[in-house]
Amino acid sequence: MAASASLTLSQPALSRSSVPRHGTATQQPTSFSTLAIPSFSGLKSTITSSARATTHRQVSSTRRFVISNAAVETLEKTDTALVMRYNPKNPYWFNRDRFVLSAGHGCMLQYALLHLAGYDSVKEEDLKQFRQWGSRTPGHPENFETPGVEVTTGPLGQGIANAVGLALAEKHLAARYNKPDAEIVDHYTYCILGDGCQMEGIANEACSLAGHWGLGKLIALYDDNHISIDGDTEIAFTENVDQRFEALGWHIIWVKNGNTGYDEIRAAIKEAKSVTDKPTLIKLSNYMILKIQEKIVTTTIGFGSPNKANSYSVHGAALGAKEVDATRQNLGWPYEPFYVPDEVKKHWSRHTPDGAALEAQWNAKFAEYEKKYPEEAAELKSIATGVLPAGWEKALPTYTPETPGDATRNLSQTMLNALAPVLPGLIGGSADLASSNMTLMKMFGDFQKNTPEEHNVRFGVREHGMGAISNGIALHSPGFIPYCATFFVFTDYMRGAIRISALSEAGVIYVMTHDSIGLGEDGPTHQPVEHLASFRAMPNILMFRPADGNETAGAYKVAVESRKRPSILALSRQKLPNLPGTSIEGTAKGGYIITDNSTGNKPDVILIGTGSELEIAAKAADELRKEGKSIRVVSFVSWELFDEQSDEYKESVLPSSVTARVSIEAASTFGWGKLVGSEGKAIGIDKFGASAPAGKIYKEYGITVEAVVAAAKEVC
Amino acid sequence: MAASASLTLSQPALSRSSVPRHGTATQQPTSFSTLAIPSFSGLKSTITSSARATTHRQVSSTRRFVISNAAVETLEKTDTALVMRYNPKNPYWFNRDRFVLSAGHGCMLQYALLHLAGYDSVKEEDLKQFRQWGSRTPGHPENFETPGVEVTTGPLGQGIANAVGLALAEKHLAARYNKPDAEIVDHYTYCILGDGCQMEGIANEACSLAGHWGLGKLIALYDDNHISIDGDTEIAFTENVDQRFEALGWHIIWVKNGNTGYDEIRAAIKEAKSVTDKPTLIKLSNYMILKIQEKIVTTTIGFGSPNKANSYSVHGAALGAKEVDATRQNLGWPYEPFYVPDEVKKHWSRHTPDGAALEAQWNAKFAEYEKKYPEEAAELKSIATGVLPAGWEKALPTYTPETPGDATRNLSQTMLNALAPVLPGLIGGSADLASSNMTLMKMFGDFQKNTPEEHNVRFGVREHGMGAISNGIALHSPGFIPYCATFFVFTDYMRGAIRISALSEAGVIYVMTHDSIGLGEDGPTHQPVEHLASFRAMPNILMFRPADGNETAGAYKVAVESRKRPSILALSRQKLPNLPGTSIEGTAKGGYIITDNSTGNKPDVILIGTGSELEIAAKAADELRKEGKSIRVVSFVSWELFDEQSDEYKESVLPSSVTARVSIEAASTFGWGKLVGSEGKAIGIDKFGASAPAGKIYKEYGITVEAVVAAAKEVC
Repeated sequence: MAASASLTLSQPALSRSSVPRHGTATQQPTSFSTLAIPSFSGLKSTITSSARATTHRQVSSTRRFVISNAAVETLEKTDTALVMRYNPKNPYWFNRDRFVLSAGHGCMLQYALLHLAGYDSVKEEDLKQFRQWGSRTPGHPENFETPGVEVTTGPLGQGIANAVGLALAEKHLAARYNKPDAEIVDHYTYCILGDGCQMEGIANEACSLAGHWGLGKLIALYDDNHISIDGDTEIAFTENVDQRFEALGWHIIWVKNGNTGYDEIRAAIKEAKSVTDKPTLIKLSNYMILKIQEKIVTTTIGFGSPNKANSYSVHGAALGAKEVDATRQNLGWPYEPFYVPDEVKKHWSRHTPDGAALEAQWNAKFAEYEKKYPEEAAELKSIATGVLPAGWEKALPTYTPETPGDATRNLSQTMLNALAPVLPGLIGGSADLASSNMTLMKMFGDFQKNTPEEHNVRFGVREHGMGAISNGIALHSPGFIPYCATFFVFTDYMRGAIRISALSEAGVIYVMTHDSIGLGEDGPTHQPVEHLASFRAMPNILMFRPADGNETAGAYKVAVESRKRPSILALSRQKLPNLPGTSIEGTAKGGYIITDNSTGNKPDVILIGTGSELEIAAKAADELRKEGKSIRVVSFVSWELFDEQSDEYKESVLPSSVTARVSIEAASTFGWGKLVGSEGKAIGIDKFGASAPAGKIYKEYGITVEAVVAAAKEVC
Repeated sequence: MAASASLTLSQPALSRSSVPRHGTATQQPTSFSTLAIPSFSGLKSTITSSARATTHRQVSSTRRFVISNAAVETLEKTDTALVMRYNPKNPYWFNRDRFVLSAGHGCMLQYALLHLAGYDSVKEEDLKQFRQWGSRTPGHPENFETPGVEVTTGPLGQGIANAVGLALAEKHLAARYNKPDAEIVDHYTYCILGDGCQMEGIANEACSLAGHWGLGKLIALYDDNHISIDGDTEIAFTENVDQRFEALGWHIIWVKNGNTGYDEIRAAIKEAKSVTDKPTLIKLSNYMILKIQEKIVTTTIGFGSPNKANSYSVHGAALGAKEVDATRQNLGWPYEPFYVPDEVKKHWSRHTPDGAALEAQWNAKFAEYEKKYPEEAAELKSIATGVLPAGWEKALPTYTPETPGDATRNLSQTMLNALAPVLPGLIGGSADLASSNMTLMKMFGDFQKNTPEEHNVRFGVREHGMGAISNGIALHSPGFIPYCATFFVFTDYMRGAIRISALSEAGVIYVMTHDSIGLGEDGPTHQPVEHLASFRAMPNILMFRPADGNETAGAYKVAVESRKRPSILALSRQKLPNLPGTSIEGTAKGGYIITDNSTGNKPDVILIGTGSELEIAAKAADELRKEGKSIRVVSFVSWELFDEQSDEYKESVLPSSVTARVSIEAASTFGWGKLVGSEGKAIGIDKFGASAPAGKIYKEYGITVEAVVAAAKEVC
């Protein structure tokens, strides 16, 4: 902790994106400012008259949403100077404003502005390599490719939910660490979303929570252009969005000229900032009431293009050279492609010194803070840098076979409560199943509108929103350790967000209980079967199925350390014994021997189990050993971690010469073929579950000691 | 078509649930009527004073939502006699009202009422076997276990979205088949949903569409009891639900006494039926304004239980014997468990003759209709019974290697347009990607509020809602063939609904295009990798990855025939050639030889490919054959279908003596180990994709002819 505050809290690029994925990934810091739009002289304020109109979309309470002219007039020049606070030369400055382009398909706008603002991550050549192999400018914004991009968007609705997570993170940290004499955490979260995001259920889930939590520093700009890929949104989207957001507890501002009304937009942001107890939705429209039909037209997609503006043909497809020329002419832009006029360069050049000054001021402030409040500063540093407090893992309990058995969901609660005092970044909760998922940290209260300093998050029955909000928290600062929970089967509801965790290197911990038919009476709608296989097939995610106390501790150890790879913990509802031979160290290797009575790495049979079925494998081994067989029992708690071990280690656990192998897992056998081989046997469940007491289903489905013993005799 | 109309249209139980899953499943017809609640004398109208109150929940426009006393007063006795129209002795009567318990965890209510109403599927002994092995009364309502249950619910939000699908189906059929002199399709869809359903994004998606489509015969009863598993919904759900539904275009009715206000509820349903252009949400509350705080209490969870009512402890856990006794005493119910007093029996007994009469009347009406409109009647019969028109499959085109190549997404469009004229039950569309998924049937217009007779459905960007709505359509009538579409990667957004398709035997066809890195520039957020494996692991679903025209036709043939098993078609964005040896018949076997220059079932190497990589396997075979090798090329278009073939057939395709096998698929290799064995090699992609032109990514990721040739030489 000898490093200076400013250095430590700069979140260097390397901490976020240390391993380039493809090609030319030399890491350089970057930045962004989509909102500081200069009204440079070359841009004519043209309103295309071909704009199409809408019949069904109602504008309710128009009066209320139109921002007053007064607000525009009172806007001072200084306000327009720099709407967003960031430092282009250090995209990871801790207290920067966050920006999320939820409508990620418009990423060229973001890349171009990152470039103009002085971020080194997007050079002119990067812009020219748009969507090409190894470029920093992929087809959708990706935080792991392009410093300055906060989160990974493209799949609609994810971005706005990430933004809710980013704003939650800010509100939480501000409540925990700000002091009357030192406002050390203080930034806004901006988000641009379109009609597509608005239609997605995940957006409604996340925005309902944002309203509930009163995230006053979340400012969402809704690009209401009324066009989606299939045409006018009127064919599928005629609800009253303003009214819905009002119902969700948001403040709504309607900007009449969303195309070129820069002063209006600035005034709207000013108004949004003045509303501190509600998130704000700024609806960007093109206010053009067609007198005859009383219709209202919104922003214009493809604004400036004389022939294609306001039609779905500019949504996904390129304009084409001819229409690009026509658009340039229409907008009065005489320059060559990629040429930036000096006037524009000069206008944008101030962002570099301004940003550096902002960070320097903040660093000085933090240095003060650190002197006055060393403990708080150390905690905040841990969260801001991702450096975990030394020795944190000693908080994890270990178990012996004599320790009374327990459900792994209860053991998970023990871990969370053991870690809560030692990991300042631990925050999370459940989708209305806290008392089933066992996720409450008892030393903390609920994160709520008026108690944002607390750590237990109540997500309601909103799994998809929960996952994406957790991604936002994880990507706010590398030392955040967000966890979220539901029944394992309901990962189906949040898989879109879980995949983004994996892709965008967000180290969320998914606490997924009720992990098999072992949950019993709730029946097949609630019993996962294919879910383990489905996540073992997903890249960059750790799928754990711990068998007892030591393995649950081990899974938490690896999961907490894995800040760039999410973890899923599949946990039992039912009580399980603590088994001989399990360990934290073994768990960290993914697959390991728990008991073995063979010699020379040549057992008669290898029995492989995971989670609640490791006990069955162990009992079967006892039976078989009584009959004189040499049996090795292997726990396969995480396939991904085992895959990463050395060939020697793998051979020491699963010698290729021993083809007599039996696996048992109360789940789909899909994928086990590779481990048990063509000579071995995989015992599992390749159909849906049933509603009955757990013991009865296990028996009827053949997940039993007898089945393992019989299979072992067959294969050897 | 010689069978009488009444027989044919009764949708016999066998057509829905022919294969019992567990134990005692003797199939008998059944029925349901939760809304015809008798106010029998034993039930005291008690209002518990321990009811907790809410601060944040606002009731807007109270005046508007309170139903007038006048409506209650004018309610005639005949209206209360039978609110729902059904025939307990034939749960599959075509024109029955549909009921969905979206809050599926309350299924004992449904089972008890099915029993009282005279459905044979739920006998007294079934009620006693609640949640036990082999019973008709599982832990959540399951259509495939319990005749009288329309859809499978439990995972929250699915049911209300299914109800939207059921109501869509009715509106569509009514518009197509009703005549001025014969209203042959005319039923309501009722749904009970709770706070949990309301929080789920899928519910907002589906309800937004219901409002957009103006589904006037959808009546949802919102059990606003203000308690979810984690406690008072105030901890996570403070939005204004009334206002949100108003924004979605629904009619809202607020029933003040949702606990015991039977007349109020009946009046509300009457009012809902009078609003024909909007779906109705009836909010069931317990109107008790606490004068001091101006708080409003909603319905009472656990109503009647003196000590546990209105608390989360009655949400999931059983009351316990003591509290059950106390509740009986509180409600003035002196009888033994499972005893039904004669008075109650008598009250309910009328449902059997009434239901039989309703069906008989309708059958007579349909017989008339059939005489006057034989063509329409034949079509409707096909939809109502699931008997496909003879020879429909002849409409599918076939291809030769000389036919110019095309993307399988375009070939899919060809199939849909070839099938549209011959399959009366075909209806579907895309989640705002119709022009990318190629799903428009050109002979039809859009299903919209004022054109409900049309077949192209515009779902907007609402994948999860789309899947669940499609399930509702499929389960409305066995001859409906709903399809729905998005990019394959976005199955992640709708997996909850897809799993319910598989579990509930809803034969939805999922048209999933852009099925690999082959989509190119959109990058890793849009490129599926693990999705094929994830669905191959899911029970009761067919995962197809066709390689060309014949295989796309073959996939459609099987998918259309599979009315009790959903199908997913993974289709390419990029153009593919028509390959020698592919066929509809081969596709129906799941895996088959397309070319082979070996003799005696002993090729040097077997190359296995799917979809766009089958071409690569075929080209590699050409190379290897030039070098004198005997090479078999196998298409593995559907693993599930191959698994169902005889051992002889499997051995003829993949002889166990030939261990030199190479597979190639631009997706996760997870699961391929079983097919290629420990001696073989699986070529695939075990990481995320990248943004670049497709050809470039294929090359960089090693999905090439060269890689297959090299691997083949390695293994043999």
